[in-house]
Amino acid sequence: MKIIMDERGKKYLIAKPQDFHSDLGIIKEEQIANASFGDTLITHLNKEFKVIKPNINDFIDLMDRRCSILIQKDIGTVIAKTGIGNSSKILDAGTGAGAIALNFGNIVGPEGHVYSYEIREDFAKIAKSNIESFGLNNIITVKNKDIKKGIDENNLDLVFLDLIKPYEIFEEVYDSLATGGYLAIYAPYIDQVETSYKIAKKLGFKDLAIVETLEREMEVRQQGTRPKTRMVGHSGYLLFGRKL
Amino acid sequence: MKIIMDERGKKYLIAKPQDFHSDLGIIKEEQIANASFGDTLITHLNKEFKVIKPNINDFIDLMDRRCSILIQKDIGTVIAKTGIGNSSKILDAGTGAGAIALNFGNIVGPEGHVYSYEIREDFAKIAKSNIESFGLNNIITVKNKDIKKGIDENNLDLVFLDLIKPYEIFEEVYDSLATGGYLAIYAPYIDQVETSYKIAKKLGFKDLAIVETLEREMEVRQQGTRPKTRMVGHSGYLLFGRKL
Amino acid sequence: MKIIMDERGKKYLIAKPQDFHSDLGIIKEEQIANASFGDTLITHLNKEFKVIKPNINDFIDLMDRRCSILIQKDIGTVIAKTGIGNSSKILDAGTGAGAIALNFGNIVGPEGHVYSYEIREDFAKIAKSNIESFGLNNIITVKNKDIKKGIDENNLDLVFLDLIKPYEIFEEVYDSLATGGYLAIYAPYIDQVETSYKIAKKLGFKDLAIVETLEREMEVRQQGTRPKTRMVGHSGYLLFGRKL
Amino acid sequence: MKIIMDERGKKYLIAKPQDFHSDLGIIKEEQIANASFGDTLITHLNKEFKVIKPNINDFIDLMDRRCSILIQKDIGTVIAKTGIGNSSKILDAGTGAGAIALNFGNIVGPEGHVYSYEIREDFAKIAKSNIESFGLNNIITVKNKDIKKGIDENNLDLVFLDLIKPYEIFEEVYDSLATGGYLAIYAPYIDQVETSYKIAKKLGFKDLAIVETLEREMEVRQQGTRPKTRMVGHSGYLLFGRKL
Repeated sequence: MKIIMDERGKKYLIAKPQDFHSDLGIIKEEQIANASFGDTLITHLNKEFKVIKPNINDFIDLMDRRCSILIQKDIGTVIAKTGIGNSSKILDAGTGAGAIALNFGNIVGPEGHVYSYEIREDFAKIAKSNIESFGLNNIITVKNKDIKKGIDENNLDLVFLDLIKPYEIFEEVYDSLATGGYLAIYAPYIDQVETSYKIAKKLGFKDLAIVETLEREMEVRQQGTRPKTRMVGHSGYLLFGRKL
Repeated sequence: MKIIMDERGKKYLIAKPQDFHSDLGIIKEEQIANASFGDTLITHLNKEFKVIKPNINDFIDLMDRRCSILIQKDIGTVIAKTGIGNSSKILDAGTGAGAIALNFGNIVGPEGHVYSYEIREDFAKIAKSNIESFGLNNIITVKNKDIKKGIDENNLDLVFLDLIKPYEIFEEVYDSLATGGYLAIYAPYIDQVETSYKIAKKLGFKDLAIVETLEREMEVRQQGTRPKTRMVGHSGYLLFGRKL
Repeated sequence: MKIIMDERGKKYLIAKPQDFHSDLGIIKEEQIANASFGDTLITHLNKEFKVIKPNINDFIDLMDRRCSILIQKDIGTVIAKTGIGNSSKILDAGTGAGAIALNFGNIVGPEGHVYSYEIREDFAKIAKSNIESFGLNNIITVKNKDIKKGIDENNLDLVFLDLIKPYEIFEEVYDSLATGGYLAIYAPYIDQVETSYKIAKKLGFKDLAIVETLEREMEVRQQGTRPKTRMVGHSGYLLFGRKL
Repeated sequence: MKIIMDERGKKYLIAKPQDFHSDLGIIKEEQIANASFGDTLITHLNKEFKVIKPNINDFIDLMDRRCSILIQKDIGTVIAKTGIGNSSKILDAGTGAGAIALNFGNIVGPEGHVYSYEIREDFAKIAKSNIESFGLNNIITVKNKDIKKGIDENNLDLVFLDLIKPYEIFEEVYDSLATGGYLAIYAPYIDQVETSYKIAKKLGFKDLAIVETLEREMEVRQQGTRPKTRMVGHSGYLLFGRKL
């Protein structure tokens, strides 16, 4: 898979070699097949496209995504707080278009695995297709299954839940985790994390923490430097608990 | 390597099997050698210790660290924004006690690599020892070298700099990156990121952004739920740029 | 002066009694003249308008304002930090449409006074007209004058500056303040407050502080309670210094 | 009333002329009685004290306060959002040591009035004494009374509540407000503002908003400029509603 970028910075995902058509002209299948990352391709209208090695973010930006996606800052916090990495075993629910599973799959590598539960068949289908396009189908298993019906895996390093009532399955989550493993939930409403906190505490999860991350950009202009006027005020809360 | 945790939640790093002595009693070398993650070990004073699979954060908390360490929220932001993962090739400078390199090494896996430059010999030594203890010495190469003297690697996916004047080597960084690769710097002072921004822009880095992350915890108490009174107001700014 | 509000919540400023025309019908001059706060007025189309005692914010929302206006949160911080109140003597520059002067005038009362310097004649004119409409012309004196040419007043409790290079007149500001009086500046760019801080320090101002205020709203919905997705990321920095 | 400040910046409140004793020496009653704001007084040990006109914040910092005090940033937000000023009529409960009442009294002036309800006799006594010391006893009336027993005033511009269950008296508050008047509550816990919001909405309050204010300081050092490491993460939420 490649990404090609035109002179305006617009990016296109090229899943497999085939003729590429755009308002800046045509690039032949052959050109694309032979291109290496960093190369420049010329259209029949003499316009330049740069060939880029797609990273996970490029891919998620361009993939088919019909449902909302956890924002980067929250994914970063989950990765950093839970210490997941190469060879980790992770479960996530619900899959949605697969963005979270892709982020995890990108990190755990071939020695790890991601199990992703999605109750809706249409979402599971989109997610599978996206995951295959990015080449992580050996690492991520999408299950079109209601996680409330039970968790098949055990000895997990992380269970990540983006569900309306995540606390309904905390008992099963606890059993499925390795000692030292993490529960992480993402929830936009305070009532969700409040209830989750109380139930997780009762079930024996340790190191419980509810965290909210705010991200602000700075802009460097001719007149001076200042934080940007607009920022995201809230995406969701993250709750972490650990089986110890 | 194992971590054992006593009944108070205090954790100890066990680099290799040997008799373990604490105020709660002794655990024999043999017990430790035979223990699996999740087991409970009993001291001669009949106190329990839980055996935990150490993740990268447990290890960094307990390892030898004589210099300040980038906080988790910033590491998370770097990982999330740059999309690094399995098989990424990363350079970081300066190494310090190795915390950042360990975080990156934990993610890139055996197919990736981390090159970590540290000018001070004492720090480089500590870092090497820490990295070996965590078992990532095949993945992370610590170089006791001034990065201003030149970058040996190329085709890198990420160059991460935690230096006083990072912008002095942006030209070399640009050359060392793969197309699509990222420059990321961490700097506590606004003047540092301002200058870095201007120089990175002049050198042709794209998608430039300066980001600051604030993290706030919520507490769930008997009386109600509320954000914690105390929070970290600032650690540092992160600047990102991309070679496209 | 009165404010009348229709059934949709839309507000209208009534500077003096005269027939009022709107899409919801006509209210006669006589009705308006005789109305007390809290009364309901009926249009010839049988629509209701509520008569409201205008506070300073209602007025500023509805008055003629052709230039940008300091946002409420920053005005609140200035009032709270400097402890101004009844009988305070305040200077502000530049006036703009008069919003800041009106806020100060609303607080100092007839025993206090606000002197407001504005270099542009058109702004000074608008400001004067606004101030007269709100009935504070005995309390606020607008001067169409470049403050760099000198400050006429002394023994001031607060000098508030919203200028591009406020530090150019800090020496005159110092002389014009009472012992215990405050300098306060509002500036969007960090370079402005940085330079201001250094110069104010050199000139002997005490209790120097640069403050930034973030305001976030919470929303209470059917599904739960959460911070609003959108918030203002930055308006400006406030610098405070005191003559002691 | 005067404030005198020694060479180290330490401030002392002088309620009435009498000999002043400190580790830097004695100042005679006579010296104090004759001093004007801005004067310098010399102790018998030849140390200098500066005479300062106390503003409301100086006074509150130095007065007797045995209970916690709303922080400045929140007071500023209340003043700014409700547009109170000269001649406003305000009710606040509970009084505590009188800090909020003093802030309001400082603003409304002799044409306005503040009614402050405090259920505890000891607090009411302290508050009265503080208010008299600052000379606002003609403007602020402290009532040692449980506000749940009823509100005596009407036509109020603002009712400010710092109570555990403020919503218990929202109906009485509504009746006591002028058309256009504001309800404002301060509450540290989210459950308090959530319940308050729902009840206020049911009772017909308009322009409902829950606001949280974060304040961060910047520091200008030799090495550069940056936000301070430590900040207050939370004081309380403010809820505003208006009778329209």
